[in-house]
Parts: sequence; C-alpha cells; structure tokens
Amino acid sequence: NSYISQELEKNIRKLHAITKNAVTDGRYIVFGAGSTQLLNAAVYALSMNMSSPAKVVAEKPFYPVYKEQTEFFKAKLFEFHGDASLLRNGTSNTIENVIEFVASPNNPDGNLKKAVLEGPSVKTIHDYAYYWPHYTAIPAPADEDLMIFTMSKLTGHAGSRFGWAIVKDKDVYENMLKYKSLADSGTSKDTQLRALKLIKVVLEDGGQGIFNFAYKTMRGRWTKLNHVLSLSKRFKLQEIPPSFCKYSQTVRGASPAFAWLKCAKEEDSNCHKVLHHEANILGREGGSFNAEDRYVRLSLVKSADDFNLLLDRLKELVSMEEQ
Amino acid sequence: NSYISQELEKNIRKLHAITKNAVTDGRYIVFGAGSTQLLNAAVYALSMNMSSPAKVVAEKPFYPVYKEQTEFFKAKLFEFHGDASLLRNGTSNTIENVIEFVASPNNPDGNLKKAVLEGPSVKTIHDYAYYWPHYTAIPAPADEDLMIFTMSKLTGHAGSRFGWAIVKDKDVYENMLKYKSLADSGTSKDTQLRALKLIKVVLEDGGQGIFNFAYKTMRGRWTKLNHVLSLSKRFKLQEIPPSFCKYSQTVRGASPAFAWLKCAKEEDSNCHKVLHHEANILGREGGSFNAEDRYVRLSLVKSADDFNLLLDRLKELVSMEEQ
Repeated sequence: NSYISQELEKNIRKLHAITKNAVTDGRYIVFGAGSTQLLNAAVYALSMNMSSPAKVVAEKPFYPVYKEQTEFFKAKLFEFHGDASLLRNGTSNTIENVIEFVASPNNPDGNLKKAVLEGPSVKTIHDYAYYWPHYTAIPAPADEDLMIFTMSKLTGHAGSRFGWAIVKDKDVYENMLKYKSLADSGTSKDTQLRALKLIKVVLEDGGQGIFNFAYKTMRGRWTKLNHVLSLSKRFKLQEIPPSFCKYSQTVRGASPAFAWLKCAKEEDSNCHKVLHHEANILGREGGSFNAEDRYVRLSLVKSADDFNLLLDRLKELVSMEEQ
Repeated sequence: NSYISQELEKNIRKLHAITKNAVTDGRYIVFGAGSTQLLNAAVYALSMNMSSPAKVVAEKPFYPVYKEQTEFFKAKLFEFHGDASLLRNGTSNTIENVIEFVASPNNPDGNLKKAVLEGPSVKTIHDYAYYWPHYTAIPAPADEDLMIFTMSKLTGHAGSRFGWAIVKDKDVYENMLKYKSLADSGTSKDTQLRALKLIKVVLEDGGQGIFNFAYKTMRGRWTKLNHVLSLSKRFKLQEIPPSFCKYSQTVRGASPAFAWLKCAKEEDSNCHKVLHHEANILGREGGSFNAEDRYVRLSLVKSADDFNLLLDRLKELVSMEEQ
C-alpha cells in the first residue's frame, strides 16, 4: 500500500524498542488519524468476527470517547454496554462477545490497569496513549493483542492527527485496514512525513532528551500539587504507588497527566462546581467518566503558566479551610 | 474550533468564485480527510434527521465507494438500497427517507448529472470531485444543499487526504462536525497547511495556469482516443456533448477523466477481460459500477507515458479488427 511509509513504521518499532513500552516483533502496524480513529477502527475490526451486537465495555472511571464514539456510529455490529465490572460478576454466559477498552495509564486517574474481563470470547483494546516515560513508570513492554499509541501524547502534536495500532492477529489487522480504506482512503502523507520527522528527532539521542525532560516536568508538577493538597482535609488526590521503570532502570514516583481529585466533604457532591465557583478552576466533571461528580479531572499537561495558576488557586482555596 | 484554518476556508471560497463552479455565499464549509470521509459524514448527518433506516441510492453506473462504504459501516441509521432509478417509478410512498448520491461529472462516464429523485424527504449528496475545468465545461455554479469537493482531483494531491463539503443547512453542518469530531478529532493541521499552500498557488494567476494546462491535456487525450476508436466497430466510447463553459466563456468539447468503453459485439460480454487478454490493458469492470460487464472504465488521468501506452495498445487492437 503506497499510503504507508515503511520508514515511519521502522522508526516506530525502534521507538518502542528504546522506551521498552511495547513488543512489536512479529506484529502488524496500522496507521490512523490519531488514536480517536483507531479506537473505532478496532471496535469495528473486532466486532466483525463476533456475534452481533458485540458488547463494548470499559471499567469506570473511563475516557468518555469510548462511549460517545461507540454510540454515535449506531452500528448493528456493536453497542455500548457500560461498566466492565458489572459483567465480571455475571455468569460466564454474559461475558461472550465482549470488547473491553483498557486505558493504561488510565484516563482520568493515571493508574496502570489490566483488563477486568477474561475469557475466550472477550477481546481487548489497549489504549496506551499515556504509556510513555513522561506519565508513568514502564514496568514491562506491553504485550497485548491490540495496542493503540498516539503522537499527541508522545510529542504533543495532537493537531497532526497521527496514531498507530500494534496488532497481533492478521484478520483483525486486515479488518482495520479495510476500515481505514473506506473511512478515508488512508493516512495523509503530509501527516506521515511530520510524524517521521518528529520520531527521528526523538530517537536522535536515544530518547534521553525528551523523556528525561518530560518526566522531570510531570514529576515536578505532581510533587508540587501533592504538597499543596497535603494540607487539605477537603480535597484528596488519587494515589499512584512508585514503581520500577524498565526504561529508566530506577524506581520512579508518579508523574500522571491528570489529577483525579475527590471532594471529601459530604456536601461537596459536585467537585467541578466547587472548584469552578470557589476558585475559578475549570476541570472536567466525574460524570463524564461514568464516575461520581464528587470527582473532577484536572489537566496537568497545560503550559507552565497555566499549571502555576492552577497551583496558586488551589493553594488559596486550601488556605481558606477551617483549621 | 482551533482545528479549522479560517485562511484555508477563505481561499476555498475564492477558488470557487474564480472557477464559477459552486455557490459558497452564506454556506458552511466542513473539512474532511478527502472526499471519501465526507461522503460517509454526509450520509450520517442526513440520516440522523430521518426515520431509520434511510435508503441510500445512486443511479447506475455509479462510483463503487457509495455502496461499499454505506454497507461496511452497517449502521442502524441507513442502508444501501441500490439503483436510484428503480425508486423513481415507485409510488410516492417509497421515496421517503431517501439519500441520493449524485456524482457530476459522473464517475465512470463523465456526464453532468442531476438527481433522479425528487420530493420533500429526498436528500441529495452532490459529489463534485470532477466538477473542475479540467474535466468538464462548467455550465453554471453548482447550488445544491450538500456539495463535496476534493484536493485529489483539483491538483492531484490525493495523498494529502483533503476535501471539503459546502453545506446549506446548519443542522446538517453541525451533524457533520460532530461526525468529524468522533471519527478522528478533526483535520490534520499539516494537511490543512499543505492544502492552503496548494490553493494559493492555484490562485496566484487566477487559476489560468493549472486550468488551461489541465483542460488542454485532458481534451487532447480525449481527442486522440476518439480518433483511434472511430475506426472500430467493436468498441464504442461514451458521448459527451460540447457545452458552454462559464469559466472559460467558450463552448468546450469533452475532456473527461475516464473512458467508459462499451464492447459492442454480442460475444464480448466482459469488456474488461477482452482488453486484458487481447491487449494487456487494465481497466475496471462495469460490474464494479453496478453496470454491465460489457462496459469497462479506463483511466485517462495517468501519466503521459501510461496514456500513450494505452493509446498504442488500443490502436493495435483496433487494427486487428476485420475490415
């Protein structure tokens, strides 16, 4: 296929070898317009080999696009079925023809995750958008059947719309190519050229430059945020334990892309509103992630200025708590 | 929306004003990854406001993607219903909730076309991929509800994957944006930048350079092809009448992107096979376009070398006919 740059594919495999975050040997690679498109391509490709409609699930809290996208396309092949953990406790009969989305680290809470469901007719889509040394320790190279990565969270070039899937099964790979061909006739060459250039720059010093910078930055933000909120009884941050990182060969403390903040007081049932009204902080409501609105997601991948503003406003809010 | 270049949109409107091929005043513009993506976005957007499933039709012979794409996505909202002209003769009851694809000039036969169906609950998607001075006279600016254009057939940059839809209705426009956002989160900025640069180059001399060159080239090929086949009793080319062109302000002879060749002899029921086996010419079977295999489509938008090879092989084939 003339739309697929072999050079780009080769460099993607090199990148994963260096970061030790995914196995690519003997796997197929599919290009897409960001991970957004590949998530849907994967749902189509997997459900084409299942009895219809396949049940698409994700354990809460989960990234809202899994649900919105699956519902929007109103396909006969699949339907969104809600929280994966509700199926876990069912009979084995109910966990047939299931597709589970697994984001690891999870969006919104940054925790490394495994699939909740198991079984011969459960297929998984592993969304590894944040499985880079910036945002998490890399305990081992991911070795799942269908893994999705994106430029957006690697170098920040979300606007280029480039992502890739690493696929074990040949049929699934071919279904995804068919999807891609009928969805938009293949990935823009301009985008592929941009992605190739970016990945080559990342690889120039074996990834040291970007990965050390990004980890230090994200780790620094997380440390500062924890320091500010350690004085609070009203707001609680998620906990992410330190873990050995194969990339850095050290134990690394957490450095997530998002804070998943909980309002601990009974009356603060909508944490988004509390932050918005009392401190002019805009987060995203827990409900968007199929969780309680007692939680709110705050982005830590903004500019330094925006992050410092967030920190200042939180500091002031915490200082007003009764001692 | 930060993913949409206002500058590019402005230049697209200028381009249509200069070529006089479409009305853009007071219309919305949606960007897509080539016309392929916009065809499907349009089917979704229109069917969202209809009773399900909407019937998607096209008059034969038609571009195969209309059927393949509509069927592949297996949506509850719509289904492919075959040849539009079969509905025309039905009762008014059967032409409710219909979406008709109209390609003009038509792919494969190059003829200017109007919708076959009419009525308050018939919606049309006008595919104007080839409605440029290269391929056809421009009798008047197109003024339809939903019109799709693509870079691919304007400058030849198919690999950039850039197309646009011109949309009259605000609801339909917003549905298409929603589709785009859930399909791939918007059009690549790299692609938009490439498209902007290309269109600016086209506009530099008011389009004279590219449109005169392309018309002369396509017209020359068509004339040569007609000359060769005028000696044949076995093969017949489609006829496209000369027409007044608002762009050039002259009457222009045909200059189509494809030859739609008919094998006239009873026994040559598969024209593709005849050309392939007897002359090593590869076309696309009539059946692909929902027509008889007695027809074959030959591309005239290949390189000059490829076109000359085609001409030589046809000449030889015709010379072997009994006199």
